[in-house]
Amino acid sequence: MIIVMHPEATPSEIDNVVAEVEAKGWQTHRSSDHGQTMIGLQGKGQPLDLFQLGQLPGVLDAMAITQKFKLASRAFRPENTTFQIGDFTVGGKQLAVIAGPCSVESREQLLETAHAVKEAGATFLRGGAYKPRTSPYSFQGMGEQGLQLLAEAREATGLPVVTEVMSPDKVKLVAVYADVLQIGARNMQNYDLLNAVGEAQRPVLLKRGMSATLEDLLMAAEYILSHGNNQVMLCERGIRTFDNKYARNTFDVNAIPTLKELTHLPLIADPSHAIGVRRHVKSVALAGVAAGADGLIIEVHPNPDAAVSDGPQSLTLPQFAELMQQVRAMAQAVGREA
Amino acid sequence: MIIVMHPEATPSEIDNVVAEVEAKGWQTHRSSDHGQTMIGLQGKGQPLDLFQLGQLPGVLDAMAITQKFKLASRAFRPENTTFQIGDFTVGGKQLAVIAGPCSVESREQLLETAHAVKEAGATFLRGGAYKPRTSPYSFQGMGEQGLQLLAEAREATGLPVVTEVMSPDKVKLVAVYADVLQIGARNMQNYDLLNAVGEAQRPVLLKRGMSATLEDLLMAAEYILSHGNNQVMLCERGIRTFDNKYARNTFDVNAIPTLKELTHLPLIADPSHAIGVRRHVKSVALAGVAAGADGLIIEVHPNPDAAVSDGPQSLTLPQFAELMQQVRAMAQAVGREA
Amino acid sequence: MIIVMHPEATPSEIDNVVAEVEAKGWQTHRSSDHGQTMIGLQGKGQPLDLFQLGQLPGVLDAMAITQKFKLASRAFRPENTTFQIGDFTVGGKQLAVIAGPCSVESREQLLETAHAVKEAGATFLRGGAYKPRTSPYSFQGMGEQGLQLLAEAREATGLPVVTEVMSPDKVKLVAVYADVLQIGARNMQNYDLLNAVGEAQRPVLLKRGMSATLEDLLMAAEYILSHGNNQVMLCERGIRTFDNKYARNTFDVNAIPTLKELTHLPLIADPSHAIGVRRHVKSVALAGVAAGADGLIIEVHPNPDAAVSDGPQSLTLPQFAELMQQVRAMAQAVGREA
Amino acid sequence: MIIVMHPEATPSEIDNVVAEVEAKGWQTHRSSDHGQTMIGLQGKGQPLDLFQLGQLPGVLDAMAITQKFKLASRAFRPENTTFQIGDFTVGGKQLAVIAGPCSVESREQLLETAHAVKEAGATFLRGGAYKPRTSPYSFQGMGEQGLQLLAEAREATGLPVVTEVMSPDKVKLVAVYADVLQIGARNMQNYDLLNAVGEAQRPVLLKRGMSATLEDLLMAAEYILSHGNNQVMLCERGIRTFDNKYARNTFDVNAIPTLKELTHLPLIADPSHAIGVRRHVKSVALAGVAAGADGLIIEVHPNPDAAVSDGPQSLTLPQFAELMQQVRAMAQAVGREA
Repeated sequence: MIIVMHPEATPSEIDNVVAEVEAKGWQTHRSSDHGQTMIGLQGKGQPLDLFQLGQLPGVLDAMAITQKFKLASRAFRPENTTFQIGDFTVGGKQLAVIAGPCSVESREQLLETAHAVKEAGATFLRGGAYKPRTSPYSFQGMGEQGLQLLAEAREATGLPVVTEVMSPDKVKLVAVYADVLQIGARNMQNYDLLNAVGEAQRPVLLKRGMSATLEDLLMAAEYILSHGNNQVMLCERGIRTFDNKYARNTFDVNAIPTLKELTHLPLIADPSHAIGVRRHVKSVALAGVAAGADGLIIEVHPNPDAAVSDGPQSLTLPQFAELMQQVRAMAQAVGREA
Repeated sequence: MIIVMHPEATPSEIDNVVAEVEAKGWQTHRSSDHGQTMIGLQGKGQPLDLFQLGQLPGVLDAMAITQKFKLASRAFRPENTTFQIGDFTVGGKQLAVIAGPCSVESREQLLETAHAVKEAGATFLRGGAYKPRTSPYSFQGMGEQGLQLLAEAREATGLPVVTEVMSPDKVKLVAVYADVLQIGARNMQNYDLLNAVGEAQRPVLLKRGMSATLEDLLMAAEYILSHGNNQVMLCERGIRTFDNKYARNTFDVNAIPTLKELTHLPLIADPSHAIGVRRHVKSVALAGVAAGADGLIIEVHPNPDAAVSDGPQSLTLPQFAELMQQVRAMAQAVGREA
Repeated sequence: MIIVMHPEATPSEIDNVVAEVEAKGWQTHRSSDHGQTMIGLQGKGQPLDLFQLGQLPGVLDAMAITQKFKLASRAFRPENTTFQIGDFTVGGKQLAVIAGPCSVESREQLLETAHAVKEAGATFLRGGAYKPRTSPYSFQGMGEQGLQLLAEAREATGLPVVTEVMSPDKVKLVAVYADVLQIGARNMQNYDLLNAVGEAQRPVLLKRGMSATLEDLLMAAEYILSHGNNQVMLCERGIRTFDNKYARNTFDVNAIPTLKELTHLPLIADPSHAIGVRRHVKSVALAGVAAGADGLIIEVHPNPDAAVSDGPQSLTLPQFAELMQQVRAMAQAVGREA
Repeated sequence: MIIVMHPEATPSEIDNVVAEVEAKGWQTHRSSDHGQTMIGLQGKGQPLDLFQLGQLPGVLDAMAITQKFKLASRAFRPENTTFQIGDFTVGGKQLAVIAGPCSVESREQLLETAHAVKEAGATFLRGGAYKPRTSPYSFQGMGEQGLQLLAEAREATGLPVVTEVMSPDKVKLVAVYADVLQIGARNMQNYDLLNAVGEAQRPVLLKRGMSATLEDLLMAAEYILSHGNNQVMLCERGIRTFDNKYARNTFDVNAIPTLKELTHLPLIADPSHAIGVRRHVKSVALAGVAAGADGLIIEVHPNPDAAVSDGPQSLTLPQFAELMQQVRAMAQAVGREA
């Protein structure tokens, strides 16, 4: 059950509603979206009359939501969520195309890539400054120096920057430089981190964990939303299944129409991680757009064979330019733009 | 190692080659394709000189193949396999579209569906006469009567018929009526059945098992090919993963570009089983075409809610007609036709 | 819903009950167990009154069973199923220990193994004459000659023989030689084969498919039971999961207490296939007994490194003898015998 | 490659070895264990002569390790790791039995449980003060107040306390109260958290992620070890597979013998999460001990039906006492004590 208050409801009207339902044995949870308060109900109180609740001063609507995810659900917000990042509208007709290297490695590498992907039609620049690596002995990222290079690349190209944050205590620092905070697959259920980005004033790109169900993903988004940050993009990046001999993961293309039905949040496909094989990234990218994704995130590197991470799945600059042409044709075939 | 003989090689030339390699300790396995003999080598004989083998009378080529699948591999046949079924060329530029009900239920149901899918642009009619059902208490199919109805529907519409065969001792009977023998996912490793269809003079549609790796699938095809039947279509129909709350299976779209690289065999996508939810079949079908599938197999029923099997994933006749329009646009975007 | 008739119910009493419920719109399905008839109801008829049904002449009991599996369920038969094979009671206090080579390879190999496992305490001899191999180029088994050797080994040792049958048309032949018909994991949903062994007068060992859910397994058993064959042993042999670098499959030890609760059928653990690594077979075997399995099936070979199949997971003869000692101690710790 | 220095090697000897191998193009990584320095080599330098390296002043040993995990490997430390926590030796003959409620809920609940599990034979008390919950609307734990209650329960019973820490900035606080820092399954690849506990002076219980491979788990341990904390227990708590209708997870019992071979670290089995069904916890616990686990972690609650979390899998106090008796018999059967 969620009670949505009028945008102009007064604090005392809100307190009054809370008192009313708590008196019937319910626990309440407040969150707010653009200054509008939502009151979520949990627990096992006495039955409530939706109509009567709707008559209380300041109440806009009261609705039963039986799914575990509430703020993320279509029941809560039937229309698609869209939001602006710079000049770009995420979740609109135009596909978001986020491109760049896995890791920021050097000024030259990043700027060359940023200019090339901008030229080819990308709308965001990606690049990792903090890298979650399986081995403690692998390159762990350039850290703040990498963030500074990303900011410089944004200055040079105008592309907003998407970069990963791995720890709650780094959220403020990363938010100084980044336009979008990325939560990686391994941290999808790192709840302290979700809480921290939920309180940041930055859009979030939330990647699905490698064995997360769709509900797990939506519940992770719910953590961010319930802290008042409504600018969340979900990302399907492949799941772990029984066969990884010829592909790094299994791209769950079914998740695209399913999530678009369950939630109002924009959805990005990550073909690079989903298949992990450079020459097949194109097929998966096109499939993602065909199935209804709102955008793509693609790893691109000037010299993939020399990349410190994810070289095998990174496109060269000319390959990315060629892919963008095909993405444009595909977007048109499904009534989108790129 | 495979030795490919000239199409006009004489039996004694073939015997001579076999004798030569067996003398060096190898076991041999003969198969033939359009009258052309291939000699496969197994075991651990003495090293062979490919150049010398190529000089023996009647030998066209001798090649080392390190993958476990040989006849199914691109190394064995670099160009795409195509074959004719009626007027249609499977594996060519035009997408094969196989449509019809899960189960043949009645003359009316089948003929109404057959005419409608033909009208909408389907190129094959599907329908189950023998049904592999999880429960022994569920409808098990109409059997031979169902086959007769399928043959009647072919007469009426001109559409070649695709239907499942579940047992080696039924292959001859089903081949009397059907144009394409379907092997279901549950029987993908039923080797006696694979051997039996390998010896039938009918094209085969081989569905991937629900937890079969791509190599498992190709090895199953190898059983059929090694019995001299080269008209094999593979079918990706979704795999079993950890999340089936909102979808019946996980459509492994990665399998499409991967299989198209590993094998020369045509590849069909089955969005109906892959997602199992009627209103999402479209997205998965388009994704399959975008990723490079050579065709689609779609469940269609005049009244899905009354279907004896697979109703929840069957399209209505108008939904199928609408899907075909979108498939046509998608085919064009990737340089195909439908 | 299942209606259980008295053992002495007359045919006309049975027909009368069937007519009664069919008149209310239900479909019926008859099966029999030791001459006692069960009438299963499917479909969507009018509501039935269990008490009134129980009053009809010849009716012993009428019960609602909401699980899909009926004859296999504890609701249908609360006590454990036990049955005799030779002198041995399957499902009783003593653990069934089925041991022998993966493939029958020669008279010497088989007899040496049979004597050794008998000596060490095995209660059944296993050995494959028809082998389901991933590759058509691998050894496919000795066929009937292998069956004859198994029968000879039974003569020599007194151990009943367990061997796989892969095709419905081979069931009669295999039943001539074998005491227990094994259905392999790849054929768990080969329904024509299940029907055929359901009609054979032989106990069946039904292996769980590599991605079969517990319900899938019980429904496969239901096929056999519904054809009147009640002597079914289930076998957990490992499932396919995301990690097979260090083990061939994942032994689903949870399945043991769960199946023992859901069904009355005896349950055998197969540690050899479940882990696939000789030096770890012991740990998995002991875990299976600790969790409540009614027996073990173990691959044993006089010279595993020379085995034509499954060498890496086969125990040597001394290793098996040592394992039996540990199994005996373990059996005692959980109130069983071996 | 790892170079192990003498415990008394001087800083300049260490620097000299580092300079030597870096001059040949290798990158180095230092870690230390009880004051003894290890130098790990990464990258692609010139070939090194192990014998010559071993001759450098201060070098104890130089060894090639080809597995990705080094400090966690048996190659690095052949004997089992053991360590003291209070009077108890983890990794020794006696099984560690960690018992207590999922969440600390109140002083009464915790103290009653602590006294009862101590009485029954547990060697550690578990209890969650910070809870990683799928839903932001669920109880998130009592926080520091919960830690204080755990410390009070330790005072009262003498049982060392195991509790979870979810965020790097909480490690110091939790370490004030806890004897063992638990890393939950969802945080297994939260590398900043692993680094933080790697620097804490507290033993760590590292739970396997729900889709982590064994190598992923060992690499996560490697993060902790490489920061100088060698007191790491691994924990198998069930993995996510395709069937969760009757069990919450799949207990990967194969992991036990496999991990005991790959690593020297102690290994704890968690039957409560692994099956998630109270009445089956016993079977899985016994299987874990039979397979060779060094201990168990079990959820126990005075009134499971009223538990705020994990009630369905929590044992009652008498059930735990009964389980301990069976664990003792099982431990004896495999040469351990409990």
